[in-house]
Amino acid sequence: MNKIYNPKPETWRDFLKRPTKTIADIEATVKEIFSEVKTKGDEAVTKYTQLFDGVSIEELLVCEEEINSAKNEVSEELKDAINLAKGNIEKFHSAQKTERITIETTEGVSCWQEKRPIQKVGLYIPGGSAPLFSTVLMLAIPANIAGCNEIVLCTPPDKNGSINPAILYTAKLCGVTKIFKIGGIQAIAAMTFGTESVAPVYKIFGPGNQFVTVAKQIATKYGVAIDMPAGPSELLVFADETANPSFVASDLLSQAEHGADSQVILVTTSEKLLNSVEKEIEKQLQVLPRKLTAEQAIDNSKLILVETVSEAIDLINEYGPEHFIVVSKDEDFFLKNIQNAGSVFIGNYTPESAGDYASGTNHTLPTNGYAKQYSGVNLDSFMKSMTFQKISEKGIQNIGKAIEIMAEAEGLQAHKNAVTLRLKSLEKMSGRAQCHPEPVKGRDLN
Amino acid sequence: MNKIYNPKPETWRDFLKRPTKTIADIEATVKEIFSEVKTKGDEAVTKYTQLFDGVSIEELLVCEEEINSAKNEVSEELKDAINLAKGNIEKFHSAQKTERITIETTEGVSCWQEKRPIQKVGLYIPGGSAPLFSTVLMLAIPANIAGCNEIVLCTPPDKNGSINPAILYTAKLCGVTKIFKIGGIQAIAAMTFGTESVAPVYKIFGPGNQFVTVAKQIATKYGVAIDMPAGPSELLVFADETANPSFVASDLLSQAEHGADSQVILVTTSEKLLNSVEKEIEKQLQVLPRKLTAEQAIDNSKLILVETVSEAIDLINEYGPEHFIVVSKDEDFFLKNIQNAGSVFIGNYTPESAGDYASGTNHTLPTNGYAKQYSGVNLDSFMKSMTFQKISEKGIQNIGKAIEIMAEAEGLQAHKNAVTLRLKSLEKMSGRAQCHPEPVKGRDLN
Repeated sequence: MNKIYNPKPETWRDFLKRPTKTIADIEATVKEIFSEVKTKGDEAVTKYTQLFDGVSIEELLVCEEEINSAKNEVSEELKDAINLAKGNIEKFHSAQKTERITIETTEGVSCWQEKRPIQKVGLYIPGGSAPLFSTVLMLAIPANIAGCNEIVLCTPPDKNGSINPAILYTAKLCGVTKIFKIGGIQAIAAMTFGTESVAPVYKIFGPGNQFVTVAKQIATKYGVAIDMPAGPSELLVFADETANPSFVASDLLSQAEHGADSQVILVTTSEKLLNSVEKEIEKQLQVLPRKLTAEQAIDNSKLILVETVSEAIDLINEYGPEHFIVVSKDEDFFLKNIQNAGSVFIGNYTPESAGDYASGTNHTLPTNGYAKQYSGVNLDSFMKSMTFQKISEKGIQNIGKAIEIMAEAEGLQAHKNAVTLRLKSLEKMSGRAQCHPEPVKGRDLN
Repeated sequence: MNKIYNPKPETWRDFLKRPTKTIADIEATVKEIFSEVKTKGDEAVTKYTQLFDGVSIEELLVCEEEINSAKNEVSEELKDAINLAKGNIEKFHSAQKTERITIETTEGVSCWQEKRPIQKVGLYIPGGSAPLFSTVLMLAIPANIAGCNEIVLCTPPDKNGSINPAILYTAKLCGVTKIFKIGGIQAIAAMTFGTESVAPVYKIFGPGNQFVTVAKQIATKYGVAIDMPAGPSELLVFADETANPSFVASDLLSQAEHGADSQVILVTTSEKLLNSVEKEIEKQLQVLPRKLTAEQAIDNSKLILVETVSEAIDLINEYGPEHFIVVSKDEDFFLKNIQNAGSVFIGNYTPESAGDYASGTNHTLPTNGYAKQYSGVNLDSFMKSMTFQKISEKGIQNIGKAIEIMAEAEGLQAHKNAVTLRLKSLEKMSGRAQCHPEPVKGRDLN
């Protein structure tokens, strides 16, 4: 572990730097597979599934039977846990629904903003040792609440051509419309271009290894949107003497087990806490099944001692952590001043694991400092906001002149003309009304 | 003009296709300039300003004096128009503010979502013949309402090293913090990497030619976000026999004058209207100063006759227009069913120009079919949403077991352990409380 005592602000950028990767060689592979999937469709997908997943898949679409039998393979205990998590995630994401915002900006000029669902979305769920059914919850639930018509899920098959039953169970539970046994680059390509089996989508969500990450980047060149750029997961904890060192250590380790490239940082104003956390990490590390992985991440981790909480918050905002745990007597100070973080976990009894699984917040969050400008996945990620405006005759008379003047000043005569024509037509109408008034009917004429 | 009568749905994709461009050669130029600005800073910026804008700039930052004197150069009439527009844009974007959303998902588990400003944003305003002060309004006003700390604006200088006074006036009026005389690729590079004069920003907004568009794409590789991918501007009008053909023609022409590559489409259920609009376009075109440009765009435009409004809406949703004008007796049907459009203009007296300048809605909108998955620029474009959670002892006892089970099923033991440690510690405490109860003080013992 790297211990850093009272670093000067001008050194922060250096030691907070995330490791960068060269992706040039991966890009070539991705482009090749993209071009093949684009032209050959399912045939190319099947070929690469054979190559990368070591299995020959005849039917890429998971059938109803497989989904039904998955239900029986998931233990009741796990089903209950998934259902509890689902309930909380649903509550939190449903609360994010927004109403239409309407405003009359000038008399006769009515403007409104409405959010409508992205009609076709694709969710990517990685395979490998850990079946990430929790990510299915985090993506499919808000997609469903948003009202997306088509929610496609791609995940790689195992050597037997099967998908982990917990993934199938969760996908079905959360309203995924189609599940495909496709992984990696070929999955992203299939959802981008479409194949005989897979209809193309408008936006792709979900985590993945560096091949998937680069594939998602490349997909954006072909008119598909993605949730956010991805990087290794990261956790920054601020803890002072009010924190329980063994809890802090367990949180840092839970992040470290994700991968050797995980980022783990402790910032503290208490040297005593720093030392206790260090000892606790050593102790807890010994009994972890993923000890080797966690150890590598911990080797790159940083324990940083600062003098004041305002120095701490500046450093944290400069880093912009994906996950930020704060256990401090100055909790309110941190909550008020944190500007850049994906999700914030407050107090001794709020481990990051809670947000990863079951508290209700989303676990798909900006890494790599992207918390400075990106939101984590939320209900709005599955919608787009559209604006509407309706202007009455009175309204165009109220703002028409301003439009004419501005359009003229920008040298856009046809823009001006679209208003002038309307204003003139209204003048004519009211002129006609004045020159040829209807005969007045009334008492006086009787 | 291309007239298309009752096309079959399977042919839509083909004739709705936007022209695609090869950007490979532009990419090389962009990468070269990026690499030079990254290493040489202001020196490189100044060199490319000399090369592309034909002027040698000593001080890139616009000084207070220049801004003050600009105020005197803008006519009172234009100032009034800009102020009217500013008021409407402020009203509409202020109405988009959202409150913190808080929910207790399970007893003791409190989750909330809050939006905070992106601290540093960069606005790009193109130069050239038309000084786009209207775009300054559209970007700087919401940035200011959002509360962004640093709002940097880059725009190319003219041959005399000056910036159009209307741009300076509007920028100052709307709270831009720094204005730089930098254009094109070098401006995007400067805001991405920072130079001696320009501090780097987290997100870049604004339109531009194809060099700027590619530069913004490349910037995203260096950790900067952008508002949205850009393409030529486009307008689709649905009009039936209730529409005024001369108004419709003026709207189509206002789009066409933007550039030869502008997309202009009329969809109608009335052959009579189609023919009248065609005649009106010919007539109005003759007197436009930008006739040559508009003519080229009109040559590529499409007038499409369909049989029913439901066919029309399907076709429109397939296209996903940036601007969508609807003038129809079936207005409500279109408003209910439009899924993919940047901004919608309703009725005979709502020209696109209104939204371009002064109604209050934003004119930075998704082109090229991106309305399927991107929002136009709005208040949220300048903020990111963050989530927070605070779990009590009771709360972790309520959801702890579910987290343990899910973490274990995903093979993430350290995630489980972070919860187990806390649950055990709470058990111990309550165990202690039971085994060694405090001596009961009360009446009975007296």
